[in-house]
Amino acid sequence: MIRLNNDYNRGAHPAVLELLQKTNDESYPGYGEDAWCEKAAQEIRKYLGGQDAQIHFMTGGTQVNFTVIAAALRPYQGVISADTGHIQNHETGSVENTGHKIHALPGTDGKLTAQAIEKEAKKYRDTVPNDHLTEPRMVFLSFPSEYGTIYSKEELTAIHRVCREYGMYLYVDGARLGYGLGSEACDVTLADLAALADVFYIGGTKCGALFGEAVVICNPVLRDHFRSYMKQNGGMLAKGWLLGLQFYALFKDGLYFEITKEADRKAMALKEAFTKKQIPFYIESRTNQQFVILDRDQMDRLAEVCVFQPDAELEDGRTCVRFCTGWSTGQEEVEQVVQAVGAL
Amino acid sequence: MIRLNNDYNRGAHPAVLELLQKTNDESYPGYGEDAWCEKAAQEIRKYLGGQDAQIHFMTGGTQVNFTVIAAALRPYQGVISADTGHIQNHETGSVENTGHKIHALPGTDGKLTAQAIEKEAKKYRDTVPNDHLTEPRMVFLSFPSEYGTIYSKEELTAIHRVCREYGMYLYVDGARLGYGLGSEACDVTLADLAALADVFYIGGTKCGALFGEAVVICNPVLRDHFRSYMKQNGGMLAKGWLLGLQFYALFKDGLYFEITKEADRKAMALKEAFTKKQIPFYIESRTNQQFVILDRDQMDRLAEVCVFQPDAELEDGRTCVRFCTGWSTGQEEVEQVVQAVGAL
Amino acid sequence: MIRLNNDYNRGAHPAVLELLQKTNDESYPGYGEDAWCEKAAQEIRKYLGGQDAQIHFMTGGTQVNFTVIAAALRPYQGVISADTGHIQNHETGSVENTGHKIHALPGTDGKLTAQAIEKEAKKYRDTVPNDHLTEPRMVFLSFPSEYGTIYSKEELTAIHRVCREYGMYLYVDGARLGYGLGSEACDVTLADLAALADVFYIGGTKCGALFGEAVVICNPVLRDHFRSYMKQNGGMLAKGWLLGLQFYALFKDGLYFEITKEADRKAMALKEAFTKKQIPFYIESRTNQQFVILDRDQMDRLAEVCVFQPDAELEDGRTCVRFCTGWSTGQEEVEQVVQAVGAL
Amino acid sequence: MIRLNNDYNRGAHPAVLELLQKTNDESYPGYGEDAWCEKAAQEIRKYLGGQDAQIHFMTGGTQVNFTVIAAALRPYQGVISADTGHIQNHETGSVENTGHKIHALPGTDGKLTAQAIEKEAKKYRDTVPNDHLTEPRMVFLSFPSEYGTIYSKEELTAIHRVCREYGMYLYVDGARLGYGLGSEACDVTLADLAALADVFYIGGTKCGALFGEAVVICNPVLRDHFRSYMKQNGGMLAKGWLLGLQFYALFKDGLYFEITKEADRKAMALKEAFTKKQIPFYIESRTNQQFVILDRDQMDRLAEVCVFQPDAELEDGRTCVRFCTGWSTGQEEVEQVVQAVGAL
Repeated sequence: MIRLNNDYNRGAHPAVLELLQKTNDESYPGYGEDAWCEKAAQEIRKYLGGQDAQIHFMTGGTQVNFTVIAAALRPYQGVISADTGHIQNHETGSVENTGHKIHALPGTDGKLTAQAIEKEAKKYRDTVPNDHLTEPRMVFLSFPSEYGTIYSKEELTAIHRVCREYGMYLYVDGARLGYGLGSEACDVTLADLAALADVFYIGGTKCGALFGEAVVICNPVLRDHFRSYMKQNGGMLAKGWLLGLQFYALFKDGLYFEITKEADRKAMALKEAFTKKQIPFYIESRTNQQFVILDRDQMDRLAEVCVFQPDAELEDGRTCVRFCTGWSTGQEEVEQVVQAVGAL
Repeated sequence: MIRLNNDYNRGAHPAVLELLQKTNDESYPGYGEDAWCEKAAQEIRKYLGGQDAQIHFMTGGTQVNFTVIAAALRPYQGVISADTGHIQNHETGSVENTGHKIHALPGTDGKLTAQAIEKEAKKYRDTVPNDHLTEPRMVFLSFPSEYGTIYSKEELTAIHRVCREYGMYLYVDGARLGYGLGSEACDVTLADLAALADVFYIGGTKCGALFGEAVVICNPVLRDHFRSYMKQNGGMLAKGWLLGLQFYALFKDGLYFEITKEADRKAMALKEAFTKKQIPFYIESRTNQQFVILDRDQMDRLAEVCVFQPDAELEDGRTCVRFCTGWSTGQEEVEQVVQAVGAL
Repeated sequence: MIRLNNDYNRGAHPAVLELLQKTNDESYPGYGEDAWCEKAAQEIRKYLGGQDAQIHFMTGGTQVNFTVIAAALRPYQGVISADTGHIQNHETGSVENTGHKIHALPGTDGKLTAQAIEKEAKKYRDTVPNDHLTEPRMVFLSFPSEYGTIYSKEELTAIHRVCREYGMYLYVDGARLGYGLGSEACDVTLADLAALADVFYIGGTKCGALFGEAVVICNPVLRDHFRSYMKQNGGMLAKGWLLGLQFYALFKDGLYFEITKEADRKAMALKEAFTKKQIPFYIESRTNQQFVILDRDQMDRLAEVCVFQPDAELEDGRTCVRFCTGWSTGQEEVEQVVQAVGAL
Repeated sequence: MIRLNNDYNRGAHPAVLELLQKTNDESYPGYGEDAWCEKAAQEIRKYLGGQDAQIHFMTGGTQVNFTVIAAALRPYQGVISADTGHIQNHETGSVENTGHKIHALPGTDGKLTAQAIEKEAKKYRDTVPNDHLTEPRMVFLSFPSEYGTIYSKEELTAIHRVCREYGMYLYVDGARLGYGLGSEACDVTLADLAALADVFYIGGTKCGALFGEAVVICNPVLRDHFRSYMKQNGGMLAKGWLLGLQFYALFKDGLYFEITKEADRKAMALKEAFTKKQIPFYIESRTNQQFVILDRDQMDRLAEVCVFQPDAELEDGRTCVRFCTGWSTGQEEVEQVVQAVGAL
């Protein structure tokens, strides 16, 4: 079965599993206070352009998102997100469950603009008195976005500036960070991200790890008692070294960047195949997720070859469908799907 | 290094890791809707004495505890726990963070009594009006307790009856369930637990898994939308099959019971060694955790041989210390520590 | 100073104050368990068309809103509101603070449509699985809306039907209920409301009382332990009879309906004055709030006569301004403002 | 009916009602931004010994308590209270509902000791790591306590010092503050309180107002966005001036102190009557609440004369009963009860 429905349908990169196997008989201190977490953090720091950062390892993206937000905000503060943002649509209201409003702004291709963010922040600042409003205190964005689109360095910088001007934190959800950085269209580096964001996370679950995300806290203000928040929110793994060693395996020799870049390359092959057949794209993406518009017949025929994910029913009866490559997608798998697309 | 400080200091039982390795190239549906989770649930159900149950897999105990409690209670309701209970002392107020009061009752050897529970429930029922009080609606207990003690079937049945009479749910935290069931002093079976508790969890993290806990929901009332609560609270693993296959490996041939029983046996060897030296016990435990009272000199000498965990400073200057065996404790390791105790 | 900026700028109707004065030396049981609350509830019930209802008295609208919502919803459930709704924009995120998401839908003239509500409810029902989504379980609407518009009986009935079909509660915020029911354009009665809504509140603060709101719970499911929620959320007044006797004074002889209808009549006089001068309305309202579009010069000239409230800066430099009559607005006051408008 | 069951069973002191009546036709800005709130704050400040303070007016004690606590604490922090404290037993878990743990310490005569507080604070500070614990960050105490007892200046100073040393806020619930300050046994002034507490509230509801409490925030750190918290928690009255003018009436000429002192004097007359009859006290109180131990016969006979409040059933079958004078208790009323006690 060729699964292109998502990028979390297989275990781990062999290098990760090998290290897990090799260290299985070793014993370690618990709760992330072990040598592997420290070593993994060191490897990650090498890519941060000298930016000082506190690094923690957690088990999943939803958990990271609401924990970071709960740790950063006071009860009367909220977080700005695109209305297509993951926290707004796919996390069962976990942010509101921690007590915070999401200021959902209309996104453009799944992305926020500095202008829209500024308008929302300005509304709070200019309303007198504003004690009947929630204060937008954090900006949440995904890199790449839920639609596979990426922010240019210029766009990120503009958002960063608005955040500075209005006293907001910039938080970047990097569940698929590798696929963003690995895109041929990306001019942002991990060092740029560390310079522009107050906090972000490097996704492991979708990028070669069995599971796990690395939270990188650049802004010292946000570091205070972060471990208390992790524990309180069920995000502190007893055997924390399991996370540390996976990230060590992925970052030691740049494996993380290599495998995600390769997945992007495969997605571009798919993109080309769809383009050739003049199958329209729902949105223009240069990363591992491709959203195309298929009719019923096309869906049926492709379903014989691979699994993909319906995303939305369109009003004309067609369907927006996601094809998603990943670190584990095989070259042959892609070729078969490309061929099937060509035969539509 | 011989680590007897806790039972979560090594990876996983080889059988677990082997299955992870073997299935690493397979691809699966996400979020626990895969064949391994189903198969693991089937294996577990074999031990439930025919009790119908909904089974979910989550990543850690704190997460399970507050998710189960948040799913079961209304905002004005609280949960009864021993004042030594894990949710009261070791989870950074995660239960209160979900909005619920813990009715902390003085424990006896780390355990609750049916009498104390009834008194608290009766107070709410008999106060008119009682709208200024929180309603105790759930009883939380750990099996074995945080001090390694276990409830007899008679004690559990008495607590079960009080819960029925006062309309409270009985929830059992089984982080170390295997070590409780494996104790030579235990007359409770998994089937008994399924009959007496409304919901409980079977600990994997401390009992042979890399990580993971199996939540067993016996009372149908508590099953409603439990997956929504899991997702909302960051407890739904994207690659859910990783949890399912671990529990499958542990339960298929009863491995879970075997390895925890063996750890208990090793703890009994330690217990005997301390007894011989007339070193006092802080509490009488027949499971894998042993709490002894040591003076400074004894601590220093044993520290040369193994790692143990100081639990509390006593007023006379001595220390209550925990020695903890586990599924991964080696026979030689125990023998060395027994010898060292003998030489005190 | 003629204050037309809002309808809560004066104390209480004389009949209310008189009763407060008259009973000041009497002593009563606390927390709303007194004869006045009971008598007030009886008077209110006379208008409910035989609909059975549990009635509670609380001190303010925000408090009622989040308490009703917190009492009705489970953590994974949310409430649908117009994006112009009071809970979405003017209550400092109090609903999210209780843990619940607001599903904010684009409003039409400040109102929700049955169609838009159904679409949102259908999305949840049709998504499989839907455990990554919050369940819209309640519909919140204001009668009249924040823009003074009112729902027709047909519109309310259509919304009621969608709520029934999708298992959602209908909750009506009646902060200005009297001004809605008193409108010449209104075909809804209190009895209709009691038949169509699961729960609603009758605003006192803005309609003749010193302060206070009467919560009317029609759906028995929502009555359970409501007093516990009131107390927990700081909404149970120690001297509850102060609320009961105010509502008794307002409802005994229909005073409530009389004074709000009169305020609507005065608003219509204002409306007519603006219409004559061809001053455009921001929105068409037939209740006590009138939203007109003024330029800077017009605002300056009217500011010499009365206080009004700027609502929003329009893109063309003009301002949307609210003029609000109330139970305490004097006939002479209105005449002066009408004259001033005529002289623009 | 002579009601000595509580001190909130009558309306308001005539001076308060008179001012309400006199200003009823005036119109004011909403939400506490009016001249009366400002004037009331000025009158209160005269008693604060020059201590700078931000002053807000809210409607009830429970509301003040959880709002102050929610505004002061981060999610991983908790509040220390006596186990007999109002927030622990009588507010339906409202503090936990905001997400915070109450560290309930055994009280002595309803009071906390500096030693017990320090021990709890030290435990958190000395535990390494302490991220599995909640941080006690605030101390809550009632003045007078729920049992009518009061802290000496020395005791309060000692508690203040522990708070400073461990970085905790001291919060004083003054629901009955007047009765505490008015006690013949009290050596604490309002100025002392302002110097020793970080935040406290002056109870109006039980001390002459119709309703209302004045929150006095001494520590500037706790002032930030307090109005946002008030609004979010339903504690910002639309007609805020109603609260301001009540406190103005009570504080302008020291009426507040006069009427509560007189109530204490009456309570002392009761106390003397019980003492003469050798009726035992449950606790020694020198304020307006007297707790005596009565047998069934005594209760029946006194119940013919007045209403009192049973507090707890004792194990020997007798009952701890509260007799409570207040600002509105008449001289004749007390004399009748004194006589009845004498006749037991």
